[in-house]
Amino acid sequence: MREVFHHSLEDVQGRLVEIAELVTVAIDKATRSFGESDVALAEEVIEADAVIDQKAIALDELAIEILARQQPVARDLRIVVSALRISASLERMGDIAEHIAQLTRMRFPERAIPKGLKSTFRKMGELDVDVARQLTELLRTQDLEISDEIRNNDDLIDDLHVSVFEKVLSDTWQGEASATVDATLASRYHERFADHAVSVAKKVAYLATGDWTTETDAIEVVSSS
Amino acid sequence: MREVFHHSLEDVQGRLVEIAELVTVAIDKATRSFGESDVALAEEVIEADAVIDQKAIALDELAIEILARQQPVARDLRIVVSALRISASLERMGDIAEHIAQLTRMRFPERAIPKGLKSTFRKMGELDVDVARQLTELLRTQDLEISDEIRNNDDLIDDLHVSVFEKVLSDTWQGEASATVDATLASRYHERFADHAVSVAKKVAYLATGDWTTETDAIEVVSSS
Repeated sequence: MREVFHHSLEDVQGRLVEIAELVTVAIDKATRSFGESDVALAEEVIEADAVIDQKAIALDELAIEILARQQPVARDLRIVVSALRISASLERMGDIAEHIAQLTRMRFPERAIPKGLKSTFRKMGELDVDVARQLTELLRTQDLEISDEIRNNDDLIDDLHVSVFEKVLSDTWQGEASATVDATLASRYHERFADHAVSVAKKVAYLATGDWTTETDAIEVVSSS
Repeated sequence: MREVFHHSLEDVQGRLVEIAELVTVAIDKATRSFGESDVALAEEVIEADAVIDQKAIALDELAIEILARQQPVARDLRIVVSALRISASLERMGDIAEHIAQLTRMRFPERAIPKGLKSTFRKMGELDVDVARQLTELLRTQDLEISDEIRNNDDLIDDLHVSVFEKVLSDTWQGEASATVDATLASRYHERFADHAVSVAKKVAYLATGDWTTETDAIEVVSSS
C-alpha cells in the first residue's frame, strides 16, 4: 500500500511540475506581450489558460481519488491536501498571466505600458518569469534552497511594485488616467504572481520538512487577493 | 459512523457560518471606514483579520482530522474537500476587506474615495455587505435560491466596477493620479469580494446537489486574482 501511495504521489508531483511549466510559458508570453504590445502573443496566453485550468481540475480529481482509495493519514494525508492547495495557487498564477495578457489586448494598438515605466515592468516581468522557473524546479527537486531564491525575487518585485506607485504619484508623472490605471493593475498583477509563488514554496517546504505551520503561514500570503 | 460523520459535518458547517459572520462584520466596517474615512474603524478591520485567518486554519485542521479519522469516500469526501475550499475563499474575502481598510488608513486624513465616485462606492460597499450576509445565510440554510441573489448582486457590482473605469477614463475626470490609483484598487477589491462569494455559492450548490461540476466551474471564478 505504501508503494502504491508513493507511486500516486509521484504522479501528483509530476502533474504539479507540468502545470508549473505551463504557467512559466504563460507568464513569459504574457509579460513579453505586455512589453512589446504583441496582441497575438497575448491571445496565445488567453487561449492557453483553459488548459491550465483543466489540468488543475484533473489533478484535484486525482488527489480526491487518492484520498478515497488509499485513505492516507497523518503526514501522507497532509501531503495530498497540500497538493490540492498548490494546484489552486498554480491555477491562480495562470489566471494572473492571463490578466496581464488581457491588459495588452485591451490597449492594443496602443501600448499598455505607460511611458517612463517600460524598464520597470520589463524587470518585473523578467523576475516573474524567473520565479515561475524556480518554482517549477522547486516542485521537481524539492530543493528548499530554491525557496530562498523565490523569496529574494519576490522582495525585488515588491520593491519595484512600490517604485511604480512612487512614480505614478510623483509630481513629474505626466501619464493620463488610463496610463495610471494600467500601471496600477499591471503592477499589482506582477506582484501577486510572485506572492502566489512564495505561498507555493511554503507549501513545498511543508512537503519536504513536515512542518505544517509553514503552510498555514502561506495561507495568509496566497490569500491577499 | 455515519452519525459521527454527520455530527462532524454539522461542526464544519457551524464554523463556516461563524467565519462568514466575521467576514460580514469585516466588509461592513471596511466599506463604512472607506466611505467615511474613519481610520479607527479601518484599524478594527485590520486587527480583526487575524481572527478570521486563525478560524480558517482551525477549520482546515478539523477537516483534515475528519479525513484522517472517518475516512469519508465518494460524496462525503467531496463535501469535506469543498469545506476546505470554502474556508480558503472566506479567508480571502476577509483579506479583501482588510485591503479596503488599508486604503482608508493609507489616505487618512485625506478621503480615500475620489470625488465624483462617493455614491458609486457607497453602492458597491452596500452590495458587498448584502452579498456577505446572503452568503452567511446560504451557508446556514443551504437554500440555493440565495445563490441567485448573490449572483444578481455580483452582476450589479460588476456593472458598478465597469462604471468606475468609465468615469476615471472619461474626459471629465479631474482626479489626480492618487485618486485614479485609489479608484482602480478599491473598485477591484469590491468586485473581487463578490467574485469570491459567487465561487463559494457554487461550492455550496455542490454540497446541496452533489453536482461537482458546479464547483470546478467555481475554481475559475475564485482564481481571477
